[in-house]
Formats: sequence, structure tokens, C-alpha cells
Amino acid sequence: MKKVINFGPGPAKLPVEVIERAQRELLNYDNRVGISILEMSHRSADFSNLLKETEKLLRELMEIPDEYAVLFMHGGGTGQFAAIAQNLGFLAKNQEKPTANYVVTGGWSDKAAKEAAKFITVNQVLKPQKPYAGVVPLNQWNIDSDAAYLYYCANETIHGVEFTNAPEVGDVALVADVSSNILSRPFDVSKHALVFAGTQKNIGIAGLTIVIVRKDLMGKAHPLTPSILDYEEIYKNNSVYNTPPCFAIYITKLVLEWIRDQGGPQAIFERNRQKAERIYNIIDSSDQFYTSVVDKSHRSQMNIPFRIGQGANGTNGNEELEAAFLKLSQARNMISLKGHRSVGGIRASLYNAVTLDEVEALANLMEEFKANNNKT
Amino acid sequence: MKKVINFGPGPAKLPVEVIERAQRELLNYDNRVGISILEMSHRSADFSNLLKETEKLLRELMEIPDEYAVLFMHGGGTGQFAAIAQNLGFLAKNQEKPTANYVVTGGWSDKAAKEAAKFITVNQVLKPQKPYAGVVPLNQWNIDSDAAYLYYCANETIHGVEFTNAPEVGDVALVADVSSNILSRPFDVSKHALVFAGTQKNIGIAGLTIVIVRKDLMGKAHPLTPSILDYEEIYKNNSVYNTPPCFAIYITKLVLEWIRDQGGPQAIFERNRQKAERIYNIIDSSDQFYTSVVDKSHRSQMNIPFRIGQGANGTNGNEELEAAFLKLSQARNMISLKGHRSVGGIRASLYNAVTLDEVEALANLMEEFKANNNKT
Repeated sequence: MKKVINFGPGPAKLPVEVIERAQRELLNYDNRVGISILEMSHRSADFSNLLKETEKLLRELMEIPDEYAVLFMHGGGTGQFAAIAQNLGFLAKNQEKPTANYVVTGGWSDKAAKEAAKFITVNQVLKPQKPYAGVVPLNQWNIDSDAAYLYYCANETIHGVEFTNAPEVGDVALVADVSSNILSRPFDVSKHALVFAGTQKNIGIAGLTIVIVRKDLMGKAHPLTPSILDYEEIYKNNSVYNTPPCFAIYITKLVLEWIRDQGGPQAIFERNRQKAERIYNIIDSSDQFYTSVVDKSHRSQMNIPFRIGQGANGTNGNEELEAAFLKLSQARNMISLKGHRSVGGIRASLYNAVTLDEVEALANLMEEFKANNNKT
Repeated sequence: MKKVINFGPGPAKLPVEVIERAQRELLNYDNRVGISILEMSHRSADFSNLLKETEKLLRELMEIPDEYAVLFMHGGGTGQFAAIAQNLGFLAKNQEKPTANYVVTGGWSDKAAKEAAKFITVNQVLKPQKPYAGVVPLNQWNIDSDAAYLYYCANETIHGVEFTNAPEVGDVALVADVSSNILSRPFDVSKHALVFAGTQKNIGIAGLTIVIVRKDLMGKAHPLTPSILDYEEIYKNNSVYNTPPCFAIYITKLVLEWIRDQGGPQAIFERNRQKAERIYNIIDSSDQFYTSVVDKSHRSQMNIPFRIGQGANGTNGNEELEAAFLKLSQARNMISLKGHRSVGGIRASLYNAVTLDEVEALANLMEEFKANNNKT
């Protein structure tokens, strides 16, 4: 089997031990049951145990307080963009014109704000720094304190803007999209009203969304909320209101075990820091051959978008050089390094499962490419 | 590995060849790519091809006309209960009070009607025959011809009521839930406005829903429809509006190939007919030891709910006998034969992947159990 290094933004690399374990027991769940996890009833004792163990592991690793529910849902992060507005929007003081605060720092928070605007009034907390390059200081945020909540994206997968800590916004209920940095670093759930993640980047495969929500905030959904997006409905039914994405839950359990066995979020964080620093150091010492537009204070440890060379008019990014870099990377069996179509350039996603050795291979490629192409 | 026979109602048995294939290439998609299908970007060329091939196979096997879109969606059948009302409800003549017809023949159509009633007015076409025992003749149906559509469940998984053909309702747009009998028999898509199925019974695993919808009916969704449930949005984006449940799509492709290799829906239907007849014959010749409440004209080939013995007051179903039957079946490694909690008794689900030999084992068990327990 050829050795490929997967720098994809999601669905993304999984720990090889997880895939090997899934492979070993794919015909015979837990090497015991006699049927595959793929065929197992979501009402069976084995699946109920799997669901409970997955929740328990997540609660331990993320230190989730008891007053929070953990929900396993369908619909991806994009489903949550609607669900959050529909479930929490009516916690706003003004019920006639429910409003929520949105902090737009990249493509995903922008998409979340647009979807929410179908259901409620969206207060844009800051003028987005375009190209998305960071986050203006908190004292410049225009927060509506009567609004239902304040939404932010903890890590912007496309634009590489990450919050290292939850923003300090006082009494306003915080909602965080952690889809692309969940369990990549320590994270304080208790500062939030709701935290959610699609699992396909750091903790599993596509098709499962985990929602961590303070229990007292449920039960106030808009009457036109589809049941599959109604937190109270999912909670009352222990995440089996309808058939859940069983196999995706199973894979997440295996990944959570792997994270635990790696030493937990703090150990994972240290390694992720090393990985990201290796790449950012090359960018920063490249004399503008490689460029990142993101402020150092908000650079993502997970997704590093960068450009190569200068365009004809002095802008960052020479598309010919970038194409040559991507071609070379593919020849070296490094895949999915192309930047998002809305941004261009290169993006290296260094999720938990990406190893130090793999990052070293990318670093070497970047150094070699610069040496061979930096003619200016 | 112990040999278990899985009669579960869903997630349900998959063809063993499908699981073996998935297992073989789980670390290396298509034995070529160098990464797992679990890790593969939904924007990659390999995944795009997989999606196209899956749709092509489905179109061939179900003879889906070109004027229909095929959508791969999140949210399960239960998500569609909302989506159908939100997307198609406003095709009703009376826009002020949009109405749709619902034919309630069991637990699932009942649930669909209740969810739809959040969004539109539901016209109950018939008085449900409780216990659900069949379908009253068409000339007794109370159809609102100004309504947006007529919804029916082609096979009621819990109650075992199946339509052998689409109801002949003239110009009214037909919507069918085929979650539990898709590709178990020939089916005329062209008579329908929309056909949908969760894949976890006959064509895959939990987490994927396939929607087949006439293209001209899209684009009229209620403005408060979440994007993940908006047909037009999913269609415009080739089912990758957000990250789709990639692995579930992959398994469905393998199952569709298996159905094709078995000879297609007609061959599958013939075998399913033999399987169901074997069990119904035992019930019918059991002198009321085994009883089925469903009219012979609407008995399901997929899910056979039945009761054993008589209760104290002469009702069908002796819970002690049923518990003894379930215990014996488990001792013989036959699993998931317990009836749905709302119905009680026994239910044998004989989906496509269940073999004739497996059904024969159940038939033998039923005959043996009757011989040993029919003391009346």
C-alpha cells in the first residue's frame, strides 16, 4: 500500500490505529457479537452501551459539567447553524424581534450568521476583517446584551483564524463552533451555553454532530423546528429519537479512546503546537516567499492557509508557483493541500491524527521548494 | 466467530459480501488510493466519482426518469417528515392554509403526519384501522384534491402493512416513504412526486437518506426551511452542500452493486416473496397459535409482526409464550425478533440481505416451538 500523507481539511486523517481496530472487528462487533456494527440495532443493549461509553469518554476528556447535555445528532455543523437559531433564538429578551450576536471571523461563522438570519435578527458584532486576518479587540465589539447569545467559530477551517480562549463577554450566553479544533487543545466548556462540532475533522467521520448544551436552555425551540433539530426532543430520547448515525458514533468512540491513550487534550495540544510552529516558522522566516495573512494572535494550530510568492501586481500568491507546489506535493504523496476555492493558495490541515513526522515531511518540502524557486 | 442470524428491523443485516469488501479496503480505498474512505475529502475526485456511480446505479436499478433529481441527505426518514411538508406543502392550491393528504396505515405514517402538522394542515385520508390491519379501499378515501400531495408509507416497518402498488389517486402528487422496502420489489417511481428512504434497512447503514424528487417541484420551500433540508439547495450543490455522510454513501454503493449482481429488483422480489410466504404459511396453518392481524392484501414482505398464543381474555398474544419464544430464538443465535415496544409480540424482518436458509431456520424454530407449546 502506498504511503500517503493526508493534509485534508475534513473529512480528514484518522489515527491509523482507529481504522485498523474498526477493520479487525468490522464483521464481528467487539470480536464477540457475531454481527457487524454496521448492522446493529440502535435499540440493542450493545449499541446503548456504546452510546453511553462514548458520552462518558467525551465528558471526561472535555470535563463537561453535569448541567450540560451531550447530544448525538444528524445534519452536520450546517444543521446546527439552523438549529442554534431555532432552539436558542427565543431566549432573547425581545421576543417580538429575537436577536443573536454573531462574530464573523471567516467563512464558517459567516455561513452560520446567514443561516441564522432566516430565523432571527443577526447582530454583527464586528466588521469582518477582510481578507479574514484575525479578530479585532474585544473593546471594539458591538454586543447587543439583550440578544439570545453570542456565536463564534473557535477555529475557522478555511481562513485559519482560531480563538485560543473563549472571548470574555460577561453574561452573554456563548455559543461555539468547535468543529475543527475540538479536543485539539484544552477548552473550557463551562464558559459556554452551547458547544458543537461535526466530528469529521478531529474526532471521527462525516455524518455525526455532537452538541453540548446547558440543560436549562432546552425546551424553548421555535414551534417550526424540525424534530431532528430540536434539542429537547433529542435529549428526552437519549439521542435515539430517530436512528442515529451508529457507525459514526462508533468511530468517534474509538477516536476518543485514542485521544485518552495519547495523554488527553493537554498532551495532544503540546504536540499540535509543535506541529503548527514548525510550519509557521518556515513561513515567517521565508522572507515573504510564503505568506500568511492571519494575525499571530489568532493563527490556527489546525489549519494553516498560506500563499506562495507574489502575484503580478504585488499581491500575495503566485498561482503558477502554487500549482507547481501542489504538483510536487502530490508527487511526494502528500494530498489535499490545495487551499479552499474561496481563498486559493495552499492550506495545511494538521489535525490531531497528523503526526510530527508527517509535518516534518511537509516542512522539508516547503524548504526544498523555496530553495529551488525563490529567485527574486 | 459465532453465526448469528439478524432479523432486526433496522439498522439491519447487510450482505456479508458487502461488509467483507468494506473490510478489505478499509485502510486503502479501492485498494489504490492510499487512504481510507473514512478519511477522504468529499470534494476529492474519488469521492465525486463514488457519488456519481452511486446515483447512476440507483437510477438504473429503480428506473428513475431523467426529470427526477436524486439527493443524498442527512437526517434520516424523520428529517424528511419535516422536509416534505416544508418543501412541498406550499404547492397546495390554498396558499393561506396549505394542506396535504396523509394516509395513516401504521406507526411511521402516523409520525410523518404529526411532524407535517407542525408546518401545514394535515388531511387524514382514512380513519386508521386500529390495530393497524391494512388499508381501506380507495373509494373510501377522503382525498382533498386541492392539497399539495398525498403521502403514504409504502411499507410500515412496525405494523407490517405494505402497499404492493402505488395507490391510484389520479392527479394528486404522490409522496412515498419506501425506507423499509426500497429495492425489495419493483416500484414505479414515475407515478410519484417524491420517494424517499433512509438507507439503514435494505440499502445500507444509518445516517443517509435518499430523496428522489421531480425537479419541477423543487424551489418552493418555506422560507424557514433549514438549508440541510432544502431540496433545491442540496440539488444545486450536487448533494455536497455540506459534508455528506460519505461512508454511508459508500456502503450504499456496495449494496446497490450487490443488488445488481443478484439480478436486480425482480430477482430480489422473487426471493423475498418465497421468504415471506414460508413464514406466513406457518402462521396461517398454525390454527391461530401464530396470528397476524394484517389483511392478506397488505401483508408486508419485509416485516412480519405476529403474536403467539392467546392472552387470558382471549386476545391475541400470550406474553409468557412470546418471552419463551424469544429466549429460545436467542439460544439459537437468532436476534432482534422482538416486536416493536408499541405492538409487542414477535417481528421477523426479512430484508433483502436475509437469506432463504436463514428464513428456513426461523421457520423450523416456529414449527418446533408450536409443536412443543400448542397444548390447547
